[in-house]
Amino acid sequence: MNLHQPAELLAAVRARNPRAIGRAISLVEDGAPAAEALLDLLDREALPAVVTVGITGPGGAGKSTLTQQLIGHYRGLGRRVGVVAIDPSSPISGGALLGDRIRMMRHATDGEVVVRSMATRGRIGGLCASAGAAVRLMAYAGCDPVIIETVGVGQAEIDVVRLADLTLLVMAPGLGDDIQAMKAGLVELADVLVVNKCDNPGAEALAMDMEQVARERDRLLRRTCATEGRGIAELAEGLETALAKSSESGELARRRQRSREAEVLDWALEMMRPRLSSLLRDNGPVRGDPRLAARNLLERLCRSAADLSNGISKEST
Amino acid sequence: MNLHQPAELLAAVRARNPRAIGRAISLVEDGAPAAEALLDLLDREALPAVVTVGITGPGGAGKSTLTQQLIGHYRGLGRRVGVVAIDPSSPISGGALLGDRIRMMRHATDGEVVVRSMATRGRIGGLCASAGAAVRLMAYAGCDPVIIETVGVGQAEIDVVRLADLTLLVMAPGLGDDIQAMKAGLVELADVLVVNKCDNPGAEALAMDMEQVARERDRLLRRTCATEGRGIAELAEGLETALAKSSESGELARRRQRSREAEVLDWALEMMRPRLSSLLRDNGPVRGDPRLAARNLLERLCRSAADLSNGISKEST
Repeated sequence: MNLHQPAELLAAVRARNPRAIGRAISLVEDGAPAAEALLDLLDREALPAVVTVGITGPGGAGKSTLTQQLIGHYRGLGRRVGVVAIDPSSPISGGALLGDRIRMMRHATDGEVVVRSMATRGRIGGLCASAGAAVRLMAYAGCDPVIIETVGVGQAEIDVVRLADLTLLVMAPGLGDDIQAMKAGLVELADVLVVNKCDNPGAEALAMDMEQVARERDRLLRRTCATEGRGIAELAEGLETALAKSSESGELARRRQRSREAEVLDWALEMMRPRLSSLLRDNGPVRGDPRLAARNLLERLCRSAADLSNGISKEST
Repeated sequence: MNLHQPAELLAAVRARNPRAIGRAISLVEDGAPAAEALLDLLDREALPAVVTVGITGPGGAGKSTLTQQLIGHYRGLGRRVGVVAIDPSSPISGGALLGDRIRMMRHATDGEVVVRSMATRGRIGGLCASAGAAVRLMAYAGCDPVIIETVGVGQAEIDVVRLADLTLLVMAPGLGDDIQAMKAGLVELADVLVVNKCDNPGAEALAMDMEQVARERDRLLRRTCATEGRGIAELAEGLETALAKSSESGELARRRQRSREAEVLDWALEMMRPRLSSLLRDNGPVRGDPRLAARNLLERLCRSAADLSNGISKEST
């Protein structure tokens, strides 16, 4: 098997070859030229519609443990599970920080669980694009659901929220005032609120607060104690309920459309960025007003629009 | 005084009128059309070169308290201090979550401290652009240094790191394994490592770990106990040392150039995004391959490059 051949690589992904899946996603993440050919092939295939679940929340809320438990739950139902873990990382060193997430070790030897870390890197705006492609590759490799888990609460997390069919916000007591920020902002984007570490001091007070929020905004609330596996079945049932409701109301279709649009916009800006960047470098050191420099840059881009158009078409062949 | 008049607003910013400063930054943050005129005026002015200090680190490390203490330190030296606080926020509700940061209350009545929250919003890529403009407005209003503080560790934080002259990474014991991620990734971007909460259990072990990291990568390490104000003078001295070193080696100039380039690129993509977005909407629901859709979008953009060029020139007048 020659995994350097796009068609063979894709066939191996479909055959659920773990090495092939890993390699395919790496190509996409690295923005390698070979990724173009691979994705062109993938996008000609009929992909199964899989459910994507976003898991977000502040550091320390227990997202990883909860994700592990959800994986276990779906595995118990005989389902093959994909996990895309979004890690912040240095624009200098690049690469996902935690490798393929040592914390998923519990399922490391289970061939029916595909775990993949993606770095947010310096490439702002490219995350929707590459995570979207990773989800499609996992779907093609038979995973359903695909869980998108994040580290921390930041812009990357908000992007992920826009990408998933359903979003789960994990909270825990005692995380300081970041949680205040999160409550106000992320609650609106979450379909299911989870108060994890439900045995810890302050959990009940937090759950009562969140129950009110959940009522006001018509969200589901679940309590879990992920380290002991308690509340996981109820959470999974909550996800089913939320998904059914979203599907009936047409919200799911709207969300998938928005997610698709966000991804297209990201790809477009991503394709634009290197051209702008090299135009910028060609012009020597930037002096004075950055906005004027930006306008000059776009004007130069427009003048070279024919080249741009050629460049884009060339890539598509 | 008519703060709706760009020239008068800018004059009031220069005269250090707090309401004017707040309004000017709001215009920029909202991407209001009036911001264009204001920034055009600002960018014709000779701005003082001020020092910018980025403060980053995981939630719970005590960034806010440390920032307060640093403000106090610089106020003690008679310096006027600006703070741009970067908050994650919902792309739906928009707006900075913590208002102008209740946590900065200690200095709330001090007219020589200008505090401003900025939301990362849904506008990925726009943060460098608008935070850069906010920093210039604060510099114009006499602030030096300008501190850029973040909530959490994510893409927004990495952007901030690229923007600042110096970056300070705040850590504390007992924050779980997010700190592992942070060590690996953000340490490379930080000039000064701070182990805060230095009285807490585990602080010494963390400090020893970080000392090794600091030695390996030629970084400064400082221990602080921000709630009690201990170690702050030593930290400020560390910042001076790092700045002098960076200035001598030419790294400071390189970093400012890179920061300027990142800002220009952000402005350019920011100017591009609404056009791409409206082109995308004009075309009805997106079906099929997102990358093909993105290429089609860029091709359409190129065909309408003349319009784009006109649009950009119109904005600049």
